[in-house]
Amino acid sequence: MQTKVFLTEDEMPRQWYNLAADLPSPMQPPLGPDGNPISPEMLAPVFPMNLIEQEVSQERWIDIPEEILSILYRWRPTPLHRAYALEKALGTPARIYYKNESVSPPGSHKPNTAVAQAWYNKQFGIKKLTTETGAGQWGSALAFACSLIGLECKIFMVRISFDQKPFRKIMMQTWGGRCIPSPSNETQAGRDILAKIPDTPGSLGIAISEAIEAAVTDTTGETRYSLGSVLNHVMLHQTIIGLETKKQLEKINEKKVDVVVGCAGGGSNFAGLAFPFALDKINGAEIDIIPVEPSSCPTMTRAPYAYDHGDVAKMTPLLPMHTLGHEFIPPPIHAGGLRYHGMAPLVSQAIVEGLLTPQSIHQLECYESAVMFARTEGIIVAPETSHAVATAIREAKKAKEEGKEKVILFNLSGHGLMDLSGYDKYFAGELIDYALPDDVLAESLKSLEGLPKPPVNKTGKW
Amino acid sequence: MQTKVFLTEDEMPRQWYNLAADLPSPMQPPLGPDGNPISPEMLAPVFPMNLIEQEVSQERWIDIPEEILSILYRWRPTPLHRAYALEKALGTPARIYYKNESVSPPGSHKPNTAVAQAWYNKQFGIKKLTTETGAGQWGSALAFACSLIGLECKIFMVRISFDQKPFRKIMMQTWGGRCIPSPSNETQAGRDILAKIPDTPGSLGIAISEAIEAAVTDTTGETRYSLGSVLNHVMLHQTIIGLETKKQLEKINEKKVDVVVGCAGGGSNFAGLAFPFALDKINGAEIDIIPVEPSSCPTMTRAPYAYDHGDVAKMTPLLPMHTLGHEFIPPPIHAGGLRYHGMAPLVSQAIVEGLLTPQSIHQLECYESAVMFARTEGIIVAPETSHAVATAIREAKKAKEEGKEKVILFNLSGHGLMDLSGYDKYFAGELIDYALPDDVLAESLKSLEGLPKPPVNKTGKW
Repeated sequence: MQTKVFLTEDEMPRQWYNLAADLPSPMQPPLGPDGNPISPEMLAPVFPMNLIEQEVSQERWIDIPEEILSILYRWRPTPLHRAYALEKALGTPARIYYKNESVSPPGSHKPNTAVAQAWYNKQFGIKKLTTETGAGQWGSALAFACSLIGLECKIFMVRISFDQKPFRKIMMQTWGGRCIPSPSNETQAGRDILAKIPDTPGSLGIAISEAIEAAVTDTTGETRYSLGSVLNHVMLHQTIIGLETKKQLEKINEKKVDVVVGCAGGGSNFAGLAFPFALDKINGAEIDIIPVEPSSCPTMTRAPYAYDHGDVAKMTPLLPMHTLGHEFIPPPIHAGGLRYHGMAPLVSQAIVEGLLTPQSIHQLECYESAVMFARTEGIIVAPETSHAVATAIREAKKAKEEGKEKVILFNLSGHGLMDLSGYDKYFAGELIDYALPDDVLAESLKSLEGLPKPPVNKTGKW
Repeated sequence: MQTKVFLTEDEMPRQWYNLAADLPSPMQPPLGPDGNPISPEMLAPVFPMNLIEQEVSQERWIDIPEEILSILYRWRPTPLHRAYALEKALGTPARIYYKNESVSPPGSHKPNTAVAQAWYNKQFGIKKLTTETGAGQWGSALAFACSLIGLECKIFMVRISFDQKPFRKIMMQTWGGRCIPSPSNETQAGRDILAKIPDTPGSLGIAISEAIEAAVTDTTGETRYSLGSVLNHVMLHQTIIGLETKKQLEKINEKKVDVVVGCAGGGSNFAGLAFPFALDKINGAEIDIIPVEPSSCPTMTRAPYAYDHGDVAKMTPLLPMHTLGHEFIPPPIHAGGLRYHGMAPLVSQAIVEGLLTPQSIHQLECYESAVMFARTEGIIVAPETSHAVATAIREAKKAKEEGKEKVILFNLSGHGLMDLSGYDKYFAGELIDYALPDDVLAESLKSLEGLPKPPVNKTGKW
């Protein structure tokens, strides 16, 4: 029984899909500290102009340069698998498919945008990229991409992760990246924090501040900053996932998908798979498109759509998004990549427009589902990805109850070989579920007070 | 520029290739403690009869059951990559190809035989497999296979690795395998050692003894033992690697391979890629077929072809092979999978017959090459695989010196994401090269004294 659908390199998509072109209401712009929209020029010290153009583009289809494809060919097209063994174990009439992004050398979907960003920066004459990384997934992907394209790469890694996850640091180093613990002495932001709290464990917010500062203060003008999720151009680069998937489903004559699932932290792997299907939905198809988040960090399911900063230090522009407030401190669940207070503006607006139906899920159910998946389909997924697996399993069980032959598709965004300690704690019974209490949420949302509000849209939904 | 060659599942080989059918001289048989050949029946308590039949088969082609293929489809056919970026960095006229076995869920070639062995055992009515593992690569692969096929799996893991490499143990557990440190209290062999040396770090020899004992003493008769390398049927199952590769080369009209390289510890990944090309050599093609080993454990390049035990405790039959002596204690280099005193009898005999030209290489050159490979081709290889990478790079440099457009092929047997500490030590300058001194080798070879010698073959070479 054949279980996966390959594409040839010739069959790969030649364009990315930009959902911004098709949203019922126009995208809300990012705002500066004065509450006025940010102009592309204001972003120029941070990003190269070719990526800023993509960030604000309203074009539906954007050509993928052949040079980028030639690097993606190293591992793309990725396989689409039919989960026969999982279906059998569940006794479901549903047909379950998953797109396997774990086959990239760094082990996740992240290189899809890392390669594109590195290439556009190189084209623009940039010599060096800076970025931050939490658990290390994004930092590894950018180091990988910079290595293949020929850029220097400096990664500010949250100190506690730097100490606890030495293997990620070695990956970055093997690919030639310079990974330093944040806060560091290399930036004013870092020095300020270290002066106040010498033994701070660091945070993603601090690391973002350091990475942006390191880029904008380089007087050669040859350094820029790179972000692995949230932004429009990142979502764009990831749509190759969903576009390939559609071609693969076509190849096996699977005409209609009923449910599309992806886990969402900043939103990029979800958007990558889901946005091409959101276009079908805009055109009238009936599809449930489900971004899944941890119940402990319920950005999409319990937080408002509002203008907020992307980081704790308020270095970033104000972005229109679902947000728990930039001062939100997520509990230490193992899905590090899903512990973010905000959500990609494109994903957020698509939720408000009614295109997506977010769900949240607790971590014990995620690990239980991931173990079932490993023992049927054979792949040990990343803790983040386990949220998508668990939701697909929920949907397959629902299809069984309803006696419906649904087609369920999810994104296997990454493998868990670098994050096995979460499985260990799960087996040892050391994990617990955590639901964010209402009063903690209310307190966190106070950091939104005084910030501008997005205007009410045509549907009156925000 | 397209960089890899896919096959469809329909194009996959339907038969394994058995080199034993084509060796110029007949294979020497394994011998029992009395010096007489082992009969298939004597192996029956250890292995199921269907695998014993494969072990002694002289058939050239053996059908791959469709049920085994249907599991291999999860990740096979694996891609064949053209190493354009590495070629460019080397400035070589050689065309370098590598077969990427790292895309299997456990990350190496090992599941090719793990799945086949688990399936044949299940067919034979076996409920449970036992095995040993050193660094954990083989144990993970067998746990993975047993999980998908529905067998229990118990893995005796060398205690020092069990303690130092907790992630491998978690992988096995996630796939439902029971991984216990060896020596254990579960076998007489383990208890005996623990009584003598309570704080022993364990050894592969002890772990093999425990795994075999656990299989043969199970009074239900439903447990058997499984080995991940060395044996003929293991080499057989791995030939799918080379057979796929030949089809892929054919697809891109690459008619002639000049150099085939694989690292060799027990011999299975090397044999898997190389044996189908050895058949071409037997039929008159000019090919250099190179198994590579660490200079610190020079089984093929400095040790005799002799009868020896596969384990320290002399539980196994006497096998005809290149061997450093069963009491050889390899130095602690990082390529754990290449630290074995013996070599597969099929590989050993093919060396004696002049089909293969073994090389040895030091670890610093291996890591240097692996880092170059990571920064050009993007894949971080396993320490074992780095020996093949380094040798392919040597050959590509030689082709440059000679100005020859050679075709060089090597087996990328596994990724190094679970073995990054070796890279860390390399970057930190903590690794050294170690050449086995002549007197240490001579001392080790004394354990062969008194054992039977293989007869001189037709060529007079042994």
